[in-house]
Formats: sequence, C-alpha cells, structure tokens
Amino acid sequence: MLRDETIRRVLRFRDDRDWLQYHTPKDLAISMCLEAAELLEVFQWSGTDLQCEGKLDKIREELADVLSYCILMADVCGLDLDEIMNAKVDRNEMKYPAELARGSAAKYTELKEAARAAEAE
Amino acid sequence: MLRDETIRRVLRFRDDRDWLQYHTPKDLAISMCLEAAELLEVFQWSGTDLQCEGKLDKIREELADVLSYCILMADVCGLDLDEIMNAKVDRNEMKYPAELARGSAAKYTELKEAARAAEAE
Amino acid sequence: MLRDETIRRVLRFRDDRDWLQYHTPKDLAISMCLEAAELLEVFQWSGTDLQCEGKLDKIREELADVLSYCILMADVCGLDLDEIMNAKVDRNEMKYPAELARGSAAKYTELKEAARAAEAE
Amino acid sequence: MLRDETIRRVLRFRDDRDWLQYHTPKDLAISMCLEAAELLEVFQWSGTDLQCEGKLDKIREELADVLSYCILMADVCGLDLDEIMNAKVDRNEMKYPAELARGSAAKYTELKEAARAAEAE
Repeated sequence: MLRDETIRRVLRFRDDRDWLQYHTPKDLAISMCLEAAELLEVFQWSGTDLQCEGKLDKIREELADVLSYCILMADVCGLDLDEIMNAKVDRNEMKYPAELARGSAAKYTELKEAARAAEAE
Repeated sequence: MLRDETIRRVLRFRDDRDWLQYHTPKDLAISMCLEAAELLEVFQWSGTDLQCEGKLDKIREELADVLSYCILMADVCGLDLDEIMNAKVDRNEMKYPAELARGSAAKYTELKEAARAAEAE
Repeated sequence: MLRDETIRRVLRFRDDRDWLQYHTPKDLAISMCLEAAELLEVFQWSGTDLQCEGKLDKIREELADVLSYCILMADVCGLDLDEIMNAKVDRNEMKYPAELARGSAAKYTELKEAARAAEAE
Repeated sequence: MLRDETIRRVLRFRDDRDWLQYHTPKDLAISMCLEAAELLEVFQWSGTDLQCEGKLDKIREELADVLSYCILMADVCGLDLDEIMNAKVDRNEMKYPAELARGSAAKYTELKEAARAAEAE
C-alpha cells in the first residue's frame, strides 16, 4: 500500500520548500527519467548478474526517488495513482489475455509487440 | 492512495501470465527506464510549453506504466513502497531543511547540488 | 569530422585497460542511456530556458561520453558510424520529404507521428 | 570515421525542413535520451543474453538516431565532435591510469566510483 498520509507527506515536503513553482509537468518528466536512470545505474556493468543481492540499499533509495516523482507528477496533473493503475490493468487484461500470454518468452515478446503495434494504430 | 488491492491486482496480472520468470531486477530497471522515457516523449519538441494541457491521456498511460514497474520492482526485491517512501522523506527533511530551502531557484539548485555532493562523499 | 585516429584512440584506451570484457552490447546500451540522462540533467529544472548558455562545460563533457559509447557500441557490433549515419539519412529523406516537412511545428509533429506509425506496421 | 560530408548532410537534412527552430539544446537533450532508450529497448527482457546477435538491424537504426542527435547538439552548441572526444580521452587517461585499471571487474567499478567521487568534489 501507499497510504494517503504518505502521499500528503511528499506534497507537504514540496510545499514547505515552495518548490511547486519548479514542478512543471515537463521538468518533472525529465527528473523522473533521470531517477529511473539512477536506478538502472545500480545494474551498470553487472553483466549476467541480473539480481538485486548486494544492491538493495541503492535500489531502495532510487526506487523511492522514482516513486516520489510519480506522486508529484500525478498531483500537478490532477491524476489519482490508484485510478490510473486500475485503468491500466483493465486495458492490459484486454491486450494480453492470460490464456494466450502464458508460456514462452517468445510469446511474451510477440504479445508485447502485437500490443504495441495495436496501440500505434 | 495506492491500495493493497490494486498492488495485488498488478502482481496477479503478472502471475496469471507466468511473467515473473522474466522479471529480474536488472530487466525491470531497464523497462522502468524505457517507460520513463515514454512519459518524457509526451513533452518531446514542446519547447517552452511545460504544461500537461492536451497531453493528459498519454500522461495517464505512461505514468501508470512507470508506477506498475515500481510495484513489480518492489515486489521482486522484497521492498514496501510506503516504507521506502517514508524513509526517503525522513532523509530529505534532513538534507533540505525547509527554512534554508524556501525561495529562489538558485537556492533550490544549490541545495540539490550540495545534497548530491554530500551523498557522493 | 570524427577522425579514424580519434576512434582508434577511444578503442585503444579501452584495450589498454582490458575493459572489452565488460563491454557487452547490452551493458553498453545501458551505459549510453545513463550518459544521455547525464546530458539531460544539465537541463534539469531549467524551465523555459532551453538554451546552452552557461552550461557548455557540462554539455561538452556529457556529449563526449554519449559519443564515446556510440563508438564503443559500433565497434563491438561491427558497425561503421559513417555508413549507418548515411543509411539513416537515406531513409529519412524518404520518410520526411522536404517539401511536406517545411513549416509549422504541427506539421513536424504529425510527420514524426506518421513516420513512427509507418515504422510500427 | 564520421566524415565532414556526412555531418553536413545531417545538418542540410534539418535545414531543408526548417527544423532548426525546434532544435533547442534542451529539446535535443530530451530527444537524445529517448533515442538512447530506444536503443536499450532492443535488449528489453533479454535476460542473460547480452549480445547483439539477431538484433543488428534495430541496433544500426537506433545507434544512428543517437549519433544524429550528437551531431545536431554539437552544431547548435558550437562544439566539434573530434575536439570534445579527444579532450575527454585526455582527461580519462589521467583519471583511469592504464596500469591501475587493468584487471578485475572490481577494480573497474572502484576506479569508476573513485573517478565519479573526484568529479563531484
């Protein structure tokens, strides 16, 4: 769960510092991208080691940064995280039917591509 | 709020399709980065228009994608979103004291840089 | 121009340190993404200031980092930068005919979207 | 090599379409980040397969896109690719002495971190 109280705390932190003035949607999108890159940096040069062992402290930090920009972006755009998340799962259940999607990686990738192509139409 | 029920729905969607096998932390970090880029793409070539007017449908979609990877990453790494978010605000309240941080963009940037430098030590 | 001698210098730098072993295409793609994010970071919170004044030292640094990963990626994948760049312009001249593309931002965006949709087919 | 003629061709392509007006440094940095993400997308869900086999057509495309934004960014900022690349190698030869850098991945990562920390000072 991500509690309303926690979300309000993130917004109050911003407001106590008068930072809303810098938080335009475009600049928030840039910052979210930068934080996602910092999360990815945890895995830089890790080769075939795809796991999180030994990396949890950094992952915790960077994941929280991405999440905080999700909260801040939703706020300035008037979106509700729970609502958009449920709407997304609704759509994905249509796009990736469970009975088709179960199984091989090939199927997974093909379904993803098929869904992407359908979106582009 | 992001309800436990919603989070469980995202995880069930994954499990109904047997996709956990592809969801290594490294590949999830890559996908989160790609989705953050798709959110940023909404603002590509927008110049000095920094707002979300006329872009909300796409923002809703892409923000939900980033959020869903936050949920999936937290799950495979055994992290709790509410807990890491509160721990982050705790630390940020130390790093960016409200009385120092209020005011000009210059101060904002300097504080960010000072905090970044402190982190690097 | 980017001289052969310069490209060879970048590759020799890598080989003198035995770093080729870490330079898998996937990890190079990750690093290129991280460096592109560092270049973008130069413009974080810049709002409607879209220019490079006062930012040139950092841009020079980060742009060189992205370029060096272009060189390293081309090398491990057996690609020639000049050749792929010309092939790309060949295709783009077909996709974005100059007579259609001249003019408004709307046209620019529409052409880009049309081209993207065509690619997805 | 990346020939002057090729660079001029990329710039002429832009000018024939009157696109320079959209090519602010900030928006170019955003686009470069998006293209780097598209290159990374080639390796999405590839797990421990870090190689470029079977992916070369897409890599060629996306790498050329990143490179074209390097050319366009250098042009609007008045930078020379060959010059900034050589300046970067000059600095890196100081930061990562070959005799220290040869060898284990641990050393590689430590050197990178040491160099990053030194930069942050």
